[in-house]
Order: sequence, then structure tokens, then C-alpha cells
Amino acid sequence: MATTMTDPRELFLHELGDLLYAENALVKTLPKLAREATDADLQKGFEAHLEETKLHVDKLKRVFELVGEKAKAEKCPAIDGITKEHDEFMSEEKPSPVITDMFLTGAGARTEHYEIAAYTGLITMAQALGEKNAVPLLQENLKQEEAALGKLEQAAKRLSRSNA
Amino acid sequence: MATTMTDPRELFLHELGDLLYAENALVKTLPKLAREATDADLQKGFEAHLEETKLHVDKLKRVFELVGEKAKAEKCPAIDGITKEHDEFMSEEKPSPVITDMFLTGAGARTEHYEIAAYTGLITMAQALGEKNAVPLLQENLKQEEAALGKLEQAAKRLSRSNA
Repeated sequence: MATTMTDPRELFLHELGDLLYAENALVKTLPKLAREATDADLQKGFEAHLEETKLHVDKLKRVFELVGEKAKAEKCPAIDGITKEHDEFMSEEKPSPVITDMFLTGAGARTEHYEIAAYTGLITMAQALGEKNAVPLLQENLKQEEAALGKLEQAAKRLSRSNA
Repeated sequence: MATTMTDPRELFLHELGDLLYAENALVKTLPKLAREATDADLQKGFEAHLEETKLHVDKLKRVFELVGEKAKAEKCPAIDGITKEHDEFMSEEKPSPVITDMFLTGAGARTEHYEIAAYTGLITMAQALGEKNAVPLLQENLKQEEAALGKLEQAAKRLSRSNA
């Protein structure tokens, strides 16, 4: 692209597309994490968050509609990097079930934190742009990411204590 | 590596090395972000956080010492992905100064969130492993990442409001 981005609305749409790509990627990744987990609660947590994540995708598409644009995902190298970090660890370190569960709480927390950063930035921009209908949808997704992070942090404490 | 990782201490050291790599990468990236920023407060913020980040590297090396290991960075594809996301946006979108500043608050927040996830996980593991001397050093770094995130979120609000 030879043109220069000058409009805050364009940045908002770019960041919205970045997050749509990330949420779509997680719909593919979460079933894999659920299969890798051996702790029953952790497994259930990934399965439950998969269902939430599918709804996050729908809500992001709805936000595109509300601002009068066609939904368009933008390649998100950050989420690809977080996924790669997981894949390389699993193949290179061949972790035992105990280590796998502990590692997955950290990989999951990194993902949730990425999304929390992205949603927080989008909400700030949507508020400034006066996109009032978009804000509550983004806030609903953000709250579920924060809740998912809280559960992963609790699982990390429980697994660390029982395996140390 | 043909061996299987079975010891929680090995996972702790791996994640410590992952974060050392990330902090080292940020020592190289932050001066670039400070040059790209046009807003004076944002620029100063990146410069101040560069000085903190150099100390974070020292503290992580000290943690390695305290647990009786040689400091060893582990390639961290996640921070590489976050960096790539920044680099591609800047080269592909050629953002105006206003958009650059707004974008940098988001890129910075993503980085801080990554580090907060990593430090939180390390503190949980260090506590479970009884590495009591390591915990306060990790907590000091975590607090500075959280404070840096708070400043970036404030800057994002200020810049979004004044440019919308």
C-alpha cells in the first residue's frame, strides 16, 4: 500500500481486524489445548472458553456491521508468535503430563493478556470515535477474557503447589 | 532434544530464559519506539521504560544466580511476533504522526501485557518451588510493567480523545 494511514477510524478498523484474526486462530487452537491438557478442570476450562471464543468472533463481526464496514481479518503476527511459542515448546521439550498442564496455564495466560490489551485499546478508540453501540459488545468480550485469565491463574497456583 | 521435561524447576528456568530473551529484545526495541513517537510524553515514557528494562535484565540474571544456574535466554517467538506486528504495520500502513502515536500505545500495551503474563507465572512457580529470594525481584519487575501499562493506557485515552 502506497497510501498513508491518517484517519483514527482506519486504525480502529485495522485493530478490529487484527483481533478478529486472533479470535479465529483461537477457535482452531483451543481444541488442541483441551486435548493436550490432562488436568480435568483445565481441560474443561479450555472447552468452555472455546464456546465463548466462537461468540467473540460473532460479536466482532457484529461490531464491523455496526460501524458500517465489511468484516475483514488482518494478519496478526503476535498471536501467530504466541502459538509458535506453544508449538515449539511442546515439540522440543516433550513435556510430561504434569509439565504440560503447568505450561498450558502460562501459554493460555499469555493469550488472554494479548486479547485484553487488544480489547482495551479498541474500547478506548470506539469511545473516542463515538461508536457507542460497539462499546458494550467489546466490553462483554473483554470481561470474558478477564474471567478466563483469572481461572488460568488459579489453575497455575493449584498445579504449581501440588507438583512442586 | 530427545529427553522429556519432567521437573517443574526445569519449566521455571525455561520460562525465566524466555523472559530474559524478551527483556533483552525490548532493550533494542524501545529506543526505536521512542524515535517513532511524536508525542513528547509518550516519547519520554518509552525512554524512561528503557532504563527500567535494562534493570529488569539485571534482575532476571540475578534470579538465575539466586537459584544456582547460569543465565540463559530462550528464544521467545511471542515477543518476536509482537515486534513483527509493529514492524509490518509501520512499513505497510505508513501511518501519519497522529496514527503512529496511537498505534504505539497499543503496541506498547501488548508488550507490557505479555510481560505481566510471564512475570505472574514465574512468581507462582517461584513461590511453589520455595525460591523465596527470587520472588521479590520478580515482583519488583512486575510492578514496573504494570505501571508502564497504566501510563500507556492513559496516553491512549488522551491521544484518542484529542484526535477523534
